[in-house]
Amino acid sequence: MTAPLIDNLQYCNFSPEIFAQLRAGGVDAVHVTIAYHESFREMVANLERWNRWFETHPDLIFKGSTAEDVRRAQASRRTAVFFGFQNPSPIEDDIGLIEICHQLGIRFMQLSYNNQSLLATGCYEAEDPGLTRFGKQAVAEMNRVGMVIDMSHSADRSTLEAIDASARPIAITHANPHWWHPALRNKSDEVLKSLTLRGGMLGFSLYPHHLRGGTSCTLESFCAMIAEAAERYGVAHLGIGSDLCQDQPDSVVEWMRVGRWSKQMDYGEGSAAAPGFPAMPEWFRDNRDWGNLRAGLAAAGFDNGEIDDVMGANWLRFYDENFGALA
Amino acid sequence: MTAPLIDNLQYCNFSPEIFAQLRAGGVDAVHVTIAYHESFREMVANLERWNRWFETHPDLIFKGSTAEDVRRAQASRRTAVFFGFQNPSPIEDDIGLIEICHQLGIRFMQLSYNNQSLLATGCYEAEDPGLTRFGKQAVAEMNRVGMVIDMSHSADRSTLEAIDASARPIAITHANPHWWHPALRNKSDEVLKSLTLRGGMLGFSLYPHHLRGGTSCTLESFCAMIAEAAERYGVAHLGIGSDLCQDQPDSVVEWMRVGRWSKQMDYGEGSAAAPGFPAMPEWFRDNRDWGNLRAGLAAAGFDNGEIDDVMGANWLRFYDENFGALA
Repeated sequence: MTAPLIDNLQYCNFSPEIFAQLRAGGVDAVHVTIAYHESFREMVANLERWNRWFETHPDLIFKGSTAEDVRRAQASRRTAVFFGFQNPSPIEDDIGLIEICHQLGIRFMQLSYNNQSLLATGCYEAEDPGLTRFGKQAVAEMNRVGMVIDMSHSADRSTLEAIDASARPIAITHANPHWWHPALRNKSDEVLKSLTLRGGMLGFSLYPHHLRGGTSCTLESFCAMIAEAAERYGVAHLGIGSDLCQDQPDSVVEWMRVGRWSKQMDYGEGSAAAPGFPAMPEWFRDNRDWGNLRAGLAAAGFDNGEIDDVMGANWLRFYDENFGALA
Repeated sequence: MTAPLIDNLQYCNFSPEIFAQLRAGGVDAVHVTIAYHESFREMVANLERWNRWFETHPDLIFKGSTAEDVRRAQASRRTAVFFGFQNPSPIEDDIGLIEICHQLGIRFMQLSYNNQSLLATGCYEAEDPGLTRFGKQAVAEMNRVGMVIDMSHSADRSTLEAIDASARPIAITHANPHWWHPALRNKSDEVLKSLTLRGGMLGFSLYPHHLRGGTSCTLESFCAMIAEAAERYGVAHLGIGSDLCQDQPDSVVEWMRVGRWSKQMDYGEGSAAAPGFPAMPEWFRDNRDWGNLRAGLAAAGFDNGEIDDVMGANWLRFYDENFGALA
């Protein structure tokens, strides 16, 4: 079987048009964010909307819960949709909700978004006291049931402690190395070394605020960064998590940044002058442009096997090993 | 493989002691009530308590979701626990929660408990206007996902309309024929004929208020009733739904009867003089007494194959046909 194409993070304003583009671009599996600040019940309402899409578009998409579903998607020329949270808000203060959420198909959960959570610290906080008491319990429970710990938006100390506390490899689903583009959201060499030494995965982000030069970032620069990361961390630990937020109104980036926690606007990675979603680079506008990235990786010196690994085979192996209950 | 022993309704105050008794009595599968008046979130908290039991007692019990799990329970000498609601309160006013609940393992849902619900009418209401608009939609959605419609506590017109509206057979999981014991909760010959003609199942109740003579009901009378039901409706449509409420404090029967809907006590099938749970018949005290029922059925003239059918094989066939999505 050929290697799958997996994008391990998107938060589009999904629609039948985007489902068709996923198919047109050959995306076999996508990890979709289903909660930022939602309570458990609000997150369930988001799942319900997806269930309705699965019912009405079975020719294009279906719900993924195991690595086998990626192979099923390849065989049936559809896209398997996996779910994750960018914040632990849906588990509220209740460790039992981790297993319930896993039963509902959630496969990734960030221990924090940008702020302090009940579990860990976000990358925008002034202080990072590391994993909380609940955070340590949650890591063990996520390990037990097979929900992947994602530290994409977390602060460094919390991230290092999560890597260390977890009995299974964790993920940074959507970020780039800080040494390439020193954004607050990008990750230090120390974090990336620790992550990958323990078998963890890094998904490279195509969100312009995470790119050198932003929207103007070149494909060459992006792929040279991946080549450098492959030398530093090993190609086996690299994948894509595009953070594609296609067709979202700017009200959504406000919800992501401010939720219900502030009465004042917080521009996050944006600014008062540019408060909305940034424009994507011209070489990655939507799911039909994955071929450009393959070509860019080839031009950067990757062979076909390595390109397959980065474009999905590594994520598939990670899914195989981390979505099931601990034996 | 020998026929399984299935009790298709219990609402015990479950504990490791009862799990051991289920095993000692050879019960391969049990359908357990997980909600009476709970909201969705409250019902999830009940599921969490069960998940904790599944984690701590994997040698005795595991969560059942398919008929295959009954065979797995037989092979591993454990009890598969299936979940159901006696009231549609956990789906609130939201049809999408039916699929969510099915994903969480719910396999039976009564369209009403004793009162009018958003879907149908309970057997204690003065008027029964039949299935509501939401009720008709819910029947179709339950048919689609594979959640069994249970009308044990519903009024006659609603029950007949549910049998008629449903594209798949339905169940009365725990009740007896009104012609044997004319309790309000027992079912008319018309209802039982209609139910079984459409492939539906009746689970005989051992709850004393449903028995001729109450706690003093004899095993002979109970088994003669089953023999008469087999003649009227066919043995293939008969099973057990004991309604065993072992070890429950009387506060629980108050919750079942009154929930949050009344500030006054309602004694349901009890009375001010006998407000609590009635004592079980001496020949069925708990899960270790299933052998008495087998012996009683033999004495009433059933052959071994028929006894196997009533004690579980019929429910297993029904599980096989009705727990999956509509093809």
